[in-house]
Amino acid sequence: MTTIARGKVYFVGAGPGDPELLTVKAAALVRDAEIILHDDLVPQAILALAAPQSMAINVGKRCGAKKITQAQIHELMISSARRGMSVVRLKSGDSAIFGRLGEEIDALNAAGVPFEIVPGVTAALAAASAVGASLTDRRKSSRVLLASGHHADERRLIARGDVAALVHEDTTLAIYMPGHDFSRIRKELLDAALPSETPCVIVSRASTSDESTLWTTLGQLENLPVLESPTVLLIGRTLENAAQHASASQSGIEPLHLLTDFLYDARHFDSPTTIHLKRSLTP
Amino acid sequence: MTTIARGKVYFVGAGPGDPELLTVKAAALVRDAEIILHDDLVPQAILALAAPQSMAINVGKRCGAKKITQAQIHELMISSARRGMSVVRLKSGDSAIFGRLGEEIDALNAAGVPFEIVPGVTAALAAASAVGASLTDRRKSSRVLLASGHHADERRLIARGDVAALVHEDTTLAIYMPGHDFSRIRKELLDAALPSETPCVIVSRASTSDESTLWTTLGQLENLPVLESPTVLLIGRTLENAAQHASASQSGIEPLHLLTDFLYDARHFDSPTTIHLKRSLTP
Repeated sequence: MTTIARGKVYFVGAGPGDPELLTVKAAALVRDAEIILHDDLVPQAILALAAPQSMAINVGKRCGAKKITQAQIHELMISSARRGMSVVRLKSGDSAIFGRLGEEIDALNAAGVPFEIVPGVTAALAAASAVGASLTDRRKSSRVLLASGHHADERRLIARGDVAALVHEDTTLAIYMPGHDFSRIRKELLDAALPSETPCVIVSRASTSDESTLWTTLGQLENLPVLESPTVLLIGRTLENAAQHASASQSGIEPLHLLTDFLYDARHFDSPTTIHLKRSLTP
Repeated sequence: MTTIARGKVYFVGAGPGDPELLTVKAAALVRDAEIILHDDLVPQAILALAAPQSMAINVGKRCGAKKITQAQIHELMISSARRGMSVVRLKSGDSAIFGRLGEEIDALNAAGVPFEIVPGVTAALAAASAVGASLTDRRKSSRVLLASGHHADERRLIARGDVAALVHEDTTLAIYMPGHDFSRIRKELLDAALPSETPCVIVSRASTSDESTLWTTLGQLENLPVLESPTVLLIGRTLENAAQHASASQSGIEPLHLLTDFLYDARHFDSPTTIHLKRSLTP
């Protein structure tokens, strides 16, 4: 069993949200850490695993009023480790996917502070589990591209002019932080000759009690209800059977029209979209 | 806490090998299952978590002398669930990545057998942890392509003529089951104008006590020592700092030449490759 070391930083993937989707090792480290530096998206149910005498600091930059800089996060990790504390740097999902792990590793290496990375379940995998699909159904897909829709700049998938070259019918796309406006993703993928009937599913808060999923197709990937973040958008033929199964198993699911007013302005919405809710929409 | 249901199949990701990298939920399900149908790559240390009265059946098709068909695996899952047993279908890594989850889900749906998917830590994430690198260092990479080098056919990444279109300098490649002959991968990526100095690392048995890593560059991605499977090959600029750090921190690591005879025919090997071993090479 892992024994936490003092004077060391553990980059720990917290998984998609469900505390039971922490790894055994991550759960032990969170429980034993003296200081936990965590991102906004790490849920309270996971932080509650920490020992009462530990210190948990939200260093998330997403929603907080406080503006902590990346340099200050580095400083906190380094100074805590140098004081001989056991430090867990807790990131949602897996640390190596769309975190700022690279910069934080460089800072620790420059300071000579030892570290260890504990991998976690990344959001795309939790989303696939939620919708009951393989990301690489070998009859339909041979690869998965994990991309980010957030902070779209020149280097992001969906901002590139060459998206056409990247997308093939047998590539599954998993877009993290896709935002709410899917029109550009839709246009670029249609322009890339991806068929308009390609299944798409948005999974919100995968693995948590608030999990919800919204099925649609690439051609209809516009004017959709806004689901609560974090969300992941999956696109690809690998989803075909799961999409069919979702639309065939409507019993027990609230009909879409009941949710209409709650969720979105129905005037903009006329697709054969299916929403599956684990519990209810009310927070 | 998860309570296992009878008459249901749980597709459980066993993670990369270290039993502590099972999720808390996966560990509970393995412990409580009445029957476990597992792949070859699931290590004994994980199967040892199962209750003594449970039944564990290796349904792996990789190395076994027995030839179990996919249809027989479906039949085993369905008949066990119909007899009211709690069934764990245990796959290495994450079930949704390069398993045969799609076919197995279809079989259960056709039979009306309920199932649940429990995501796991996929091998590429464990490999990134092992080498201390982000897969998406935002200064160098904005996406990750998970591809398979196994059973190369027309639809596999490395068999495609259009690999050039798929590969950009800011895409990190994670190739599962890359095999031992990297010459085609090397040629296709060089032909695709990926720089020959692009860092590559092969990670063998990530997260286990037998873990070893072998650093090289795309230009030198040939005639390498054969590491024990399972291996993952990571390629991309996101690895640059980790590669530098690996070559700078040689102290405490057995010099490469000591391993030479053991590992490979040195005549074919003249690259600036670095091998890091967690323990030793002897099994």
